[in-house]
Amino acid sequence: MRDDMLTTILSELNGSNVDIEASAVISADGLMMASMLPSGLEEDRIGAMSAAILALGGRTAAELDRGDLEQVLIKGNNGFVLLTQAGADAVLAVMTRATAKLGLIFLDVRRAAEKLTKIL
Amino acid sequence: MRDDMLTTILSELNGSNVDIEASAVISADGLMMASMLPSGLEEDRIGAMSAAILALGGRTAAELDRGDLEQVLIKGNNGFVLLTQAGADAVLAVMTRATAKLGLIFLDVRRAAEKLTKIL
Repeated sequence: MRDDMLTTILSELNGSNVDIEASAVISADGLMMASMLPSGLEEDRIGAMSAAILALGGRTAAELDRGDLEQVLIKGNNGFVLLTQAGADAVLAVMTRATAKLGLIFLDVRRAAEKLTKIL
Repeated sequence: MRDDMLTTILSELNGSNVDIEASAVISADGLMMASMLPSGLEEDRIGAMSAAILALGGRTAAELDRGDLEQVLIKGNNGFVLLTQAGADAVLAVMTRATAKLGLIFLDVRRAAEKLTKIL
C-alpha cells in the first residue's frame, strides 16, 4: 500500500518533466524504498552511490559551517544527479538529462519530496 | 605574479555578491592554490573536503551515466558550497549564505572559473 503510494509519486515526478530520466526513494543507509528507473541503471549502484554522497555531503556541510544537509546536486556533461532529503529517514534521488532546466527540476522535486515526507 | 592574478579573481568574485562568504582555488588533489576566506574557515579543511567530494562526485557521475564531472552543489540549511571545475587541474570552491540566489551565483562563478582556466 505505502509502496504503491511511493511509486505513484515517483511516476508522477518522472512524468512531470521529460528531462527526468529516473527517480528513486532511498533510505539513509542506501537501501532502495521505491524506484522508477530505466533499464541500464541498477538499483544497487544508485543506492550505494547516493548513500556515500549523502554521508560526505553531510560532513562537508557541517565542517564548512553550512548547517544540516538538505540537497546535493552533481552536474556532469551528460546530465544531473539531484539528491534531496525527504524527511529524516529518506532521500529522493533524481537523474536528469543535460538539457534539464534546473529551476523547473528543483520545483518538481521539492513538491515530490514534500509528498514523500508526509507518507514516510 | 600568477598568485596575485588568482587572488584578484577571487576578490572580484567575493565582491560581486554579498552572499558569497568565501572562495578558493584548489588543485585536484586538494591543495590550496589561492583563497579568500573569512577567519574561522581553515584552508586545510576546505581543501580536504573539496578533494573528497570531487573524487566521489566524479565517480557518481560516471557510474550513473552523467558523464564527466563539471560541478557539485551542496545545500545546507545554513548556506551552499559550490565546487566548479576550472580547467583540468583546478577547482573553484565557493561558500555562500543560505539567502544566496543560485542563478546569480552560478553566473558569477562560471565567469570566474573561465578566467581562472585561462590563467592556470
